[in-house]
Amino acid sequence: MASPEIDALTQALSRLPGLGPRSARRAVLYLLKKREGALGPLLAALSAVEARLTDCSICGNVDTTDPCGICADPRRDQRALCVVEEVADLWALDRSRLFPGRFHVLGGRLSALEGVRPEDLGIDSLIRRIEAGGIDEVVLAMNATLEGQTTAHYIAERIERFPVRVTQLAHGLPVGGELDYLDEGTLAQALRARRPVA
Amino acid sequence: MASPEIDALTQALSRLPGLGPRSARRAVLYLLKKREGALGPLLAALSAVEARLTDCSICGNVDTTDPCGICADPRRDQRALCVVEEVADLWALDRSRLFPGRFHVLGGRLSALEGVRPEDLGIDSLIRRIEAGGIDEVVLAMNATLEGQTTAHYIAERIERFPVRVTQLAHGLPVGGELDYLDEGTLAQALRARRPVA
Repeated sequence: MASPEIDALTQALSRLPGLGPRSARRAVLYLLKKREGALGPLLAALSAVEARLTDCSICGNVDTTDPCGICADPRRDQRALCVVEEVADLWALDRSRLFPGRFHVLGGRLSALEGVRPEDLGIDSLIRRIEAGGIDEVVLAMNATLEGQTTAHYIAERIERFPVRVTQLAHGLPVGGELDYLDEGTLAQALRARRPVA
Repeated sequence: MASPEIDALTQALSRLPGLGPRSARRAVLYLLKKREGALGPLLAALSAVEARLTDCSICGNVDTTDPCGICADPRRDQRALCVVEEVADLWALDRSRLFPGRFHVLGGRLSALEGVRPEDLGIDSLIRRIEAGGIDEVVLAMNATLEGQTTAHYIAERIERFPVRVTQLAHGLPVGGELDYLDEGTLAQALRARRPVA
């Protein structure tokens, strides 16, 4: 019963992660009711992003400037480089504000199953960045999955010839994790990496 | 760390019902990753709706045409009119495809608390539609809330002088409703409106 335009908007919204057909419809109704307050700003924000969206030619981040805001920030520690699988991981780590350095986005992980090979990822560009010098530490912040860890091992081997410290994120109990509910893999990691009580 | 444009988009999306800051961020990342597949279509759909959005001057529905698709549809039963509080209610009823007639959107409900008076709602325009003739039945499809039912009673009184049948939606057990979990109000309604077993 809705017009084709409204239907198209509902469909486009329902494809977003976290929104289904039902919540997309509610979102559309909200937008239709608040033309000035919601539809206008959303349209403007979307247009602005669409017009200026670009990949950072240095780290692979997605931003509206190239180099991206992080690579262009002079306060960032140039000597520390954190390698992540996806832009989402970069954002998650950067939100924590705990890593003062820069990032490198691989754009995925090695996967025999999905046919992702080293040359499909931003590994060569990572090596060029390390070769260019000025980097002391490379943090391999891959996901704690089989594929993520395979990727980390592969990269660690490829860069061991450089005079950089290669580290990876600690594995163990997540904050709030209860032993009873954790999988054996996590428990094994936590036990293996146990540390003296300070 | 994200650019102002991306932040603005995240904020605009997080204001949609059903999306919070976290899911809005995931949605933005999805849009950034699928520029052609998702960002483009969403922007196009939003622009099309924004450019053509209008209120139906007959029933108050929101559509891209005036009169709206329902009012302009000659297959709709002109003699039955369903009065609803909001456009969302119209859509919900129309999705059920069970009401063959047309609609009238009040744009809210009477509320002493929120200071909504009869003249703030589309009641005068409803009366003009009934006065114009050709309508046999008016279905008062207000929400089963105190304010919705107050509104229905008020409208029923205002239109009782017209030769139309005034009905309202049945109240009772929802499909799948278990007595044990239903509130007393619903149970009271269901009991009061009990019917002989067919």
